Amino acid sequence: MIGLIRVLTLEDPELLNRHGRLLEARYGLPVESRCIPDQPRGIYDEATEAAAVPKIVETARQLEAGGARAIFISCAADPALEEVREAVSVPVVGAGSAGAALALALGGRIGLLSITEAVPGAIERILGPRVVALERPTGVTDATHLLEPGAVERSLEAARRLVQQGAGTILLACTGFANLSMATRIQADLGVPAVDPVWAGGLMLSYVLKEESRCG
Amino acid sequence: MIGLIRVLTLEDPELLNRHGRLLEARYGLPVESRCIPDQPRGIYDEATEAAAVPKIVETARQLEAGGARAIFISCAADPALEEVREAVSVPVVGAGSAGAALALALGGRIGLLSITEAVPGAIERILGPRVVALERPTGVTDATHLLEPGAVERSLEAARRLVQQGAGTILLACTGFANLSMATRIQADLGVPAVDPVWAGGLMLSYVLKEESRCG
Repeated sequence: MIGLIRVLTLEDPELLNRHGRLLEARYGLPVESRCIPDQPRGIYDEATEAAAVPKIVETARQLEAGGARAIFISCAADPALEEVREAVSVPVVGAGSAGAALALALGGRIGLLSITEAVPGAIERILGPRVVALERPTGVTDATHLLEPGAVERSLEAARRLVQQGAGTILLACTGFANLSMATRIQADLGVPAVDPVWAGGLMLSYVLKEESRCG
Repeated sequence: MIGLIRVLTLEDPELLNRHGRLLEARYGLPVESRCIPDQPRGIYDEATEAAAVPKIVETARQLEAGGARAIFISCAADPALEEVREAVSVPVVGAGSAGAALALALGGRIGLLSITEAVPGAIERILGPRVVALERPTGVTDATHLLEPGAVERSLEAARRLVQQGAGTILLACTGFANLSMATRIQADLGVPAVDPVWAGGLMLSYVLKEESRCG
């Protein structure tokens, strides 16, 4: 199974397991989801990221000890990715770098659909100048706003602005878009490839685990 | 279907269709393979690449006109990738950048199993300093040497040297390794993820076409 880490504290099992369920449905990968303790608002600045890193590493160690054959850090900012890779011996994938990598393979001019004004560092380090535009849905400044009425329509409008600015591939720069099936909607409405970071992570993990099951 | 382009002239249908058959078997993607005319030795220097580029573009145009929903340039050097992206309106994936992108998503320290002494440009532009080592199988200086007796064992030895130098993920920097199932063998023998560029290309294409079929 894949050990999936949510980088905020979630008491509701439905919310905790949401990303894992998406991966199970799309790729047939068994997933065990865990979240980090004592951070109900997640990671939103340097101090909260610093507090989260050792918790993410410890969660990954526990998942590996429990039989995880790979670890997925399900956040577009890839918190603690390098630290977890040092700490465990199984493959570790982060949603941000997986999404950036898939976008890179699919096209040269990438538009970011984001909830922040800045390109997340994990994505910037991979895509650099290949990011031709960044847009936020109107009124969205954090992931909870994606759950409000009209968020789908406003996200589609922002994606349309990216295409108008020359983007040939859209990368969703937050895992919160996965719950809205925004990648499917954008590809259907605008006719350009749209990369969801949770699905991209699952895609990369399906490659590793497919090879493992052939070897086993 | 996917339009797959081989960047050398192949008269033998079995050789022409070899990469396509691998993608059909692994991902269930229907593939139509074409090769470029009048280059039986393929691309091996700047002059032969310059000669190939317009042929690759024309082949891609024909495949799109024939109904291809995506184009795959099945060579780790990604010849004419940018030019084909300008020329057609469907997604275009190159084996080199797809392989580099998958390796990037899977690990931070990448070893290249190569047939040349230099890192192919398409891979260098994506991975840069993440490439920690490059090794060639003993006696291998072009892709035809991979068909000789002992090539599998010598490739495995070279992959082992990459791991000894700190590589946590192996990227096969030539599509010729696909015929030897080297990625599966390396992962089984050495226990590290190994990325085949043909399989990586198919993986990225499966994402786009899966989304398209959901939308259609």
